[in-house]
Amino acid sequence: MKLYSYWRSSCSFRVRIVLNLKKISYEYVSVNLIKLGGQQHSPDFQNLNPTREVPFLNDGSVSLSQSIAIIEYLDKKYPDVPVFPKSFSERGLCLEICELINSGIQPLQNLKVLQYLETTLKVSAQQKSDWINHWIVLGLNSLEQRLSSHESRFCIGDSPTAADAFLIPQVYNALRFGLNVSDYKNIQRIYDHCLSEEAFFRAAPEQQPDAPQAAALA
Amino acid sequence: MKLYSYWRSSCSFRVRIVLNLKKISYEYVSVNLIKLGGQQHSPDFQNLNPTREVPFLNDGSVSLSQSIAIIEYLDKKYPDVPVFPKSFSERGLCLEICELINSGIQPLQNLKVLQYLETTLKVSAQQKSDWINHWIVLGLNSLEQRLSSHESRFCIGDSPTAADAFLIPQVYNALRFGLNVSDYKNIQRIYDHCLSEEAFFRAAPEQQPDAPQAAALA
Repeated sequence: MKLYSYWRSSCSFRVRIVLNLKKISYEYVSVNLIKLGGQQHSPDFQNLNPTREVPFLNDGSVSLSQSIAIIEYLDKKYPDVPVFPKSFSERGLCLEICELINSGIQPLQNLKVLQYLETTLKVSAQQKSDWINHWIVLGLNSLEQRLSSHESRFCIGDSPTAADAFLIPQVYNALRFGLNVSDYKNIQRIYDHCLSEEAFFRAAPEQQPDAPQAAALA
Repeated sequence: MKLYSYWRSSCSFRVRIVLNLKKISYEYVSVNLIKLGGQQHSPDFQNLNPTREVPFLNDGSVSLSQSIAIIEYLDKKYPDVPVFPKSFSERGLCLEICELINSGIQPLQNLKVLQYLETTLKVSAQQKSDWINHWIVLGLNSLEQRLSSHESRFCIGDSPTAADAFLIPQVYNALRFGLNVSDYKNIQRIYDHCLSEEAFFRAAPEQQPDAPQAAALA
């Protein structure tokens, strides 16, 4: 199994968490999204994955992009450590949390959107920063309310699910963009707990083989 | 079962298609996203759904937002007419197509993002139109390549899946924004076929009870 990943990609971070939770060994293939205009645009990678995005999973005859699709596939194929709750309603809540991040926050602060804002719309540094903060805060507000009904260590119940695999990379990104998340009591508690677990910690950007040495040392 | 919906919401359109495919009867509750600043921001609706978005499903004790979560929940609870393929790999492909739209295209051209571009970033009408086209074309290019390996009437195989329930509303929106999709042979074929089926046709915006009369007549 090969995971095409970039150390800083938060969507790749999600898949790395699930691979670790399930203890699936895989080959890490680095796709540098920045260097020389981005290796995701190289003809070789484009042939593999026309969406020119990471994460991208190759598992024998199965090739998939999109973190939700990859994680759901892994959950079906390697069901020993499930990352979706069994009950219909909790499974629904789990996917809702994933999507609040996957479609509600991340697409508005990913690399290609920020590049478009800068190069085509020529927004100022302040406008770009305001844009990022606006969408992250809006999303975290919704998430915090959705998580407010319990005080577990994870998003749902007492074991990690896909919802945590989506939440942790998003909070990691929010902190990187300079946001203070400590007012989000539930989010902060779940974040602190998850990052104390090996599967999450080892999936973090600075732990990846393609992280610059400075990040690894930080 | 209650579906909180807005006639023009493409994410609500997705859920309406699946409810129709599964022949589930439901109460349609209109949430006007435009009128008086948007009914989704009313205290009553916000109490129900803190994310202040439609679609929002209420099924007894289960309340869910996010179209993927709602559709997956419906598929588990009403499995008679499945909308996800059985094989792991086809299920993965189905979710990948859903997400290429759900996180790759739709979030960049939804109402609140376009409002932010207009009111906060003060982009021109031309810049707004270019923004919309840019993300739709990028997404449709990826989708067309992902669909290029077969010539079925639906995205996957010979029966409708969640992938079609995501594709049709997105193409409908692209046409509304003035894009020509006829060069996308696979997308155009699937779109034409699906809209000839009652479950899709009856889910279309102009068929909804809250559509303005002019739209219903168009």
